[in-house]
Amino acid sequence: MPTPITDVDLTLAAELGQQLRVDSIRSSTSAGSGHPTSSMSAADLMAVLVGRHLRYDWDDPDNPANDHLIFSKGHASPLLYSIYKAVGVVSDEELMTGYRRFGSRLEGHPTPVLPWVDVATGSLGQGLPDGVGVALAGKYLDELPYRVWVLCGDSEMAEGSMWEALDKASYYKLANLVAIVDVNRLGQRGPTELSWDLDAYGRRAAAFGARVFAVDGHDVAAIDQALAEAGDVSGQQPAVILARTRKGRGFSEVEDREDWHGKPLPPEMAERAVIELGGERNLLVRGPRPPEGTLRRPAADAAEVKLPAYERGQKVATRRAYGDALVALGVRPDVVAMDGEVSNSTFADQFAHAYPQRYFEMYIAEQQMVAAAVGFGARGYRPFASTFAAFFTRAHDFIRMAAISRASICLVGEIGADGPSQMALEDLAMLRAVHGSTVLYPSDATSAAALVLAMADLDGISYMRTTRGAYPVLYDAGETFPVGGAKVPRSADADQVTLVGAGVTLHECLAAAGQLAGEGISARVIDLYSVKPVDTATLAAAAAATGGRLVVAEDHHPEGGLGSAVVDAVTGAGRTDLAIVRLAVRQMPGSGTTRELLEASGISASHIAEAARRLLAED
Amino acid sequence: MPTPITDVDLTLAAELGQQLRVDSIRSSTSAGSGHPTSSMSAADLMAVLVGRHLRYDWDDPDNPANDHLIFSKGHASPLLYSIYKAVGVVSDEELMTGYRRFGSRLEGHPTPVLPWVDVATGSLGQGLPDGVGVALAGKYLDELPYRVWVLCGDSEMAEGSMWEALDKASYYKLANLVAIVDVNRLGQRGPTELSWDLDAYGRRAAAFGARVFAVDGHDVAAIDQALAEAGDVSGQQPAVILARTRKGRGFSEVEDREDWHGKPLPPEMAERAVIELGGERNLLVRGPRPPEGTLRRPAADAAEVKLPAYERGQKVATRRAYGDALVALGVRPDVVAMDGEVSNSTFADQFAHAYPQRYFEMYIAEQQMVAAAVGFGARGYRPFASTFAAFFTRAHDFIRMAAISRASICLVGEIGADGPSQMALEDLAMLRAVHGSTVLYPSDATSAAALVLAMADLDGISYMRTTRGAYPVLYDAGETFPVGGAKVPRSADADQVTLVGAGVTLHECLAAAGQLAGEGISARVIDLYSVKPVDTATLAAAAAATGGRLVVAEDHHPEGGLGSAVVDAVTGAGRTDLAIVRLAVRQMPGSGTTRELLEASGISASHIAEAARRLLAED
Repeated sequence: MPTPITDVDLTLAAELGQQLRVDSIRSSTSAGSGHPTSSMSAADLMAVLVGRHLRYDWDDPDNPANDHLIFSKGHASPLLYSIYKAVGVVSDEELMTGYRRFGSRLEGHPTPVLPWVDVATGSLGQGLPDGVGVALAGKYLDELPYRVWVLCGDSEMAEGSMWEALDKASYYKLANLVAIVDVNRLGQRGPTELSWDLDAYGRRAAAFGARVFAVDGHDVAAIDQALAEAGDVSGQQPAVILARTRKGRGFSEVEDREDWHGKPLPPEMAERAVIELGGERNLLVRGPRPPEGTLRRPAADAAEVKLPAYERGQKVATRRAYGDALVALGVRPDVVAMDGEVSNSTFADQFAHAYPQRYFEMYIAEQQMVAAAVGFGARGYRPFASTFAAFFTRAHDFIRMAAISRASICLVGEIGADGPSQMALEDLAMLRAVHGSTVLYPSDATSAAALVLAMADLDGISYMRTTRGAYPVLYDAGETFPVGGAKVPRSADADQVTLVGAGVTLHECLAAAGQLAGEGISARVIDLYSVKPVDTATLAAAAAATGGRLVVAEDHHPEGGLGSAVVDAVTGAGRTDLAIVRLAVRQMPGSGTTRELLEASGISASHIAEAARRLLAED
Repeated sequence: MPTPITDVDLTLAAELGQQLRVDSIRSSTSAGSGHPTSSMSAADLMAVLVGRHLRYDWDDPDNPANDHLIFSKGHASPLLYSIYKAVGVVSDEELMTGYRRFGSRLEGHPTPVLPWVDVATGSLGQGLPDGVGVALAGKYLDELPYRVWVLCGDSEMAEGSMWEALDKASYYKLANLVAIVDVNRLGQRGPTELSWDLDAYGRRAAAFGARVFAVDGHDVAAIDQALAEAGDVSGQQPAVILARTRKGRGFSEVEDREDWHGKPLPPEMAERAVIELGGERNLLVRGPRPPEGTLRRPAADAAEVKLPAYERGQKVATRRAYGDALVALGVRPDVVAMDGEVSNSTFADQFAHAYPQRYFEMYIAEQQMVAAAVGFGARGYRPFASTFAAFFTRAHDFIRMAAISRASICLVGEIGADGPSQMALEDLAMLRAVHGSTVLYPSDATSAAALVLAMADLDGISYMRTTRGAYPVLYDAGETFPVGGAKVPRSADADQVTLVGAGVTLHECLAAAGQLAGEGISARVIDLYSVKPVDTATLAAAAAATGGRLVVAEDHHPEGGLGSAVVDAVTGAGRTDLAIVRLAVRQMPGSGTTRELLEASGISASHIAEAARRLLAED
């Protein structure tokens, strides 16, 4: 590699901006898709940032002292990848032949398959919330002076999650967070709500506690000054730079014109554009390096986690076991917890009391909570985030994107009987459909605690459902609960039917088996605590042993939950002879006690026993 | 009923406030659950509102001129139901024996099983966005001077959706919307982020375009003046009343104390509280009536919808068919459309051009978009809301709550190949698990257009997936596509295997069947355009006719989508002998063309044909 220019003055920064534009056009035209105009508007902002302010060791993306650069407007990927070319970590050839091509790491929207990318973006309104998580880690855990620079689009300021992010950034005094808003006035289909009204944006950002800088986003000197001031981490407020820009800046045929969103320039136009922009350049630059001599954060030590032990038969809610186990996990310095203002119900408050420096109250902002978890994960922490299971639906898009971010985060959702708005009857379906996820639903405190420990080392998105009510402990302390396994708390050679439950319905299955035993019917019971991955072998063996007769009971709507996991597993294991009854919540529930609701939904012991009798009678 | 007091002066309003407190305590204590303290903080606000400002004909909740009262803080249901007692539509007996009881309409969080409730609340941050929808209907469609009063909690101001709501309320100049924020300082687990900093709230609300009123929420005169000014619809700005209140106000043992959220007072405490509050009262009041003589909105006329017709073999994207059909539906005056700033891709822009007065651009705010749909639905309109299918995950909690609101809304999500952040691989699982939902995934323009027409008359949440790419029209215009049905575009008596697809994979199934035919294998093909409800009879018949051999191919993760719908149906129809192969997207995709991604995901024609061969070889 030729020697890069490390002293990037403003004249050179302006040149760099033109290069980024040219390369954004060239790469997207070569790919036949992409967003060149959305890249061109922000090119000067990024040129000055990367050339003069971003403290980053491009040869060591894992350097903990590195600043962070997040493209919340992920569709401006041509600009990001053109930056990578300008600093010499991606070749011009890769840019021109890889961008948006099948199998390439230069995807249409950035993902962490690239070592310089912290989080996947492309669903708008997520990069800034993710950045809040990284900035929280920097200020409170890493205790390093790195800054988190987030390039935001103006359109995405309509997403409430951006305001959740600024709210939390000011609440947590994240002076190390800088949102750079590329106010180019135009969205996909036309003008934005606020157009170029920088004052309106500024009032909002200031009201949410940010230091606000309004600049001409094509004036490199003005940009430079704003970045210098915004990047000062000595204060207590996050910074928002509002940059008035022009979409497609620099090419008169598209600049500030509608109907050029997300369209590559046709080759002839691209040629004219490159000429108007002064031709191709191959500047190789490096901005400031991160501070030397920064101590690397100590690796998580191998402190032994002492799980809580419960007596068999003792009534303990699994939510309490979550709190107990999380406190036990606290000996691991990488474990961080968050909650959505219900920690006294989820029992996350136990961790908050034991490890206040690693607990972050996220208040009622589930999107930001999951995004913060992703940010913590990007910095190597192991986040646990809890709220009522129903309210994780609020963060579905963030959970989905967390999977694309290759994040390893642990989500814990509590369920209880308090009417349909509060009861999660969709969470298992949502979480099972997340790529690479793990979904756990323990029935007792022993298994819950063991599985919390397991979650702390799982890759990807893991989710545990906990139960509000206290149920008898079923397993001895020390029993193992491998992820992907199942327990068979009741079985005999003469079993005629298999009853499958998890969580509260496992207790109903056990009661049903007791009823059936009194009638001379031998029922096997499976505790399907691992809903995904699921123990196909145990299910298939039980089905084979009991004439294919299965009853599955779940406190969830009939689609996508426990019953689906069972049927998917059993039918996925080859030709199947199956007689299955699936008991699930098929009517809209109202208020009531757990017992009333279990009965009304047809998922109680009596219904399970009746289903088993019916299956046997039909054969 | 005794004659109600219709001239509620401020002294009486204060008395009414005490009654509402007493009844909130009594009802929650009798139920053994509920949120009395969260009700007591807002009692004075609601007493003055209901007694002196809310224009409502309690004998005719369907009167279109009625104001609307939405409890965004749905957990304050004891207060709402105590209001219903005070205006004489719910008896004291019902309040005392029904609240939160199984089978009662007085659920823990309000739902529209009550005639005075517009929308279900209880997931915080939704009532105000829903109210924006009602206010949009009032100002732009009903053109009636009713006001929408929304009681908000202070905790829920941390939800970004509240700011999406205020953003849209100011963008659309909804002077008919009044948010009353009960700033009682305490959330569930402790103090809120902003505590009693009314200035901070006020700066934010003003920056988002609201008229702001800050009051002592226990000073009935101050409340009265603020409500009078806020309720003036002659301006162009929504109003936000910030009321400084004390949680548990009026009972010294709990007032402004932590750890009293969501807890009923024990009976002895409740007795002391009632005494301190001056005892039980049975005031019967009626506030102002709605303006007389208001014209009722004309019912939707029976104008014939002329669906677009497409030629068989012509390549037409189903997203285009959506736009065409929606324009055709526009002859129905109740049809309203919205889009999340991608209308030039979803083709909702066709409706926007044809019926601009019934099109509402929601910009990139999917939560608010769905909430607005719910609000329009509450006013009797038939909303269609579109965006990229992936981004409906952003609104999952709102969709779930829309089902609890018994809303009838139509959602249309476009899919295409543009990397994992943009491609919906979870939407079918999400929508199938919504209570009472309909999920449609047409393969061609003819069926898409017909199903759009069908959606306009479906109850509940309906969802259609549309495809970005253009595929050949498969069906003649005039063909019928009943919801819950399926098409069998290819079948013969000698069929040995059944191939099931929908959308893009149906075309792959047809190609696979062609390949197999060349090898002497006869394959039946099912177009499962109705994913929920699903055509169990057609699937079961096909399975029976083809030796139980099924191949299902879907452009979705393997959990909860098309394959689950098929397996659920077939195994739900009695003892089943099944040999099924499910082809789905099992790896995290990247960028690429549709063809590359179909091949890489193993859901293309060649993979379908290979799966069929394998099934036949195994038997």
